Amino acid sequence: MPKIVDHEARRRHIAEALLRIISRDGLDAVSLREVAAEAEVSMGMVQHYFSTKDEMLMFALAHLNARIGERVARAAAAGSPRALVRAGLLELLPLDEERAFEARIGLAYLARSVVAEDLAALLRAALPYVVGFYAEQIRTAQALGQVYAGLDAGKEATILFTMAQGMVNPALIGHLTPEQVEAAVDYQLDRLFPSR
Amino acid sequence: MPKIVDHEARRRHIAEALLRIISRDGLDAVSLREVAAEAEVSMGMVQHYFSTKDEMLMFALAHLNARIGERVARAAAAGSPRALVRAGLLELLPLDEERAFEARIGLAYLARSVVAEDLAALLRAALPYVVGFYAEQIRTAQALGQVYAGLDAGKEATILFTMAQGMVNPALIGHLTPEQVEAAVDYQLDRLFPSR
Repeated sequence: MPKIVDHEARRRHIAEALLRIISRDGLDAVSLREVAAEAEVSMGMVQHYFSTKDEMLMFALAHLNARIGERVARAAAAGSPRALVRAGLLELLPLDEERAFEARIGLAYLARSVVAEDLAALLRAALPYVVGFYAEQIRTAQALGQVYAGLDAGKEATILFTMAQGMVNPALIGHLTPEQVEAAVDYQLDRLFPSR
Repeated sequence: MPKIVDHEARRRHIAEALLRIISRDGLDAVSLREVAAEAEVSMGMVQHYFSTKDEMLMFALAHLNARIGERVARAAAAGSPRALVRAGLLELLPLDEERAFEARIGLAYLARSVVAEDLAALLRAALPYVVGFYAEQIRTAQALGQVYAGLDAGKEATILFTMAQGMVNPALIGHLTPEQVEAAVDYQLDRLFPSR
């Protein structure tokens, strides 16, 4: 009987190996040989599932986004608009080993996207949804009287999102402690949502 | 007579070639061969001035920082604390070709620093001065009655700096226009400095 192969599981297995390499050594270190070694499969197997490095990078990014998306969806049970915004921001920040693993990868992709148009297009398509999520929560809070109605929800959302993105590197290299990251996020949120 | 060689000029020439490669194609693309080709010198010449890739990357970073530092120093003639903070932030943002060229490089170094301890150490040493500059301006403005005395200058400075850093990628890939970047910066500054 022919062996039944779960192709999706194999692709995910290879993608996870790729993400471990990026998080540990950066995008520089990604090669067919390295990925095969990390995944403990042959180079031919990697090539069977991914015909180019870019295809592998795109698949691994989608896999990573799904991981983070699941956690954000769980955090969305948090309740109030403020709690939702806070939970969404903190999922992006390297406050524990899992998020630090992911944040190192995210930063590698961000840097690559400014010289790789396919990745830039992907990010341009995704960012309005990400930032829009925060803007929507702020508008809801405004309707509920929890945020001053005169504030610009779109700009507030952009500021929150970019602040969190900009904290990733300082937190990863140890300029900001996890406590300082959380305190700065809460400080900006306290201003936006004066009544908790 | 022996030819007089300006070694510093040669090192800078090679570093500029390296920065062009990083800004155009990313850190991935940096190799001895590429740098020599871009600088139009022999590979032996590059090796004569830089014995390792890391040494070359560190020299090029110092060269880049000096370029940006000069502009920030000129901007520091801007006057009021608010004008100083604004000028400093805008120098980091890709609002024209020169700053976009530099911002792509900065992002490449930031991403590398989370997997290269020598770069991380350099950033950890530099960041307190960068963020401290903003905090100092805010404290001066508080003493002058231009910023509410109850605000936390350190946290405000961290938020401003990380917000600007986090805008670099969205601006470079075209999610945010230069006008939107400037408007968001001014929005946060208007809140901090209610009286201009």
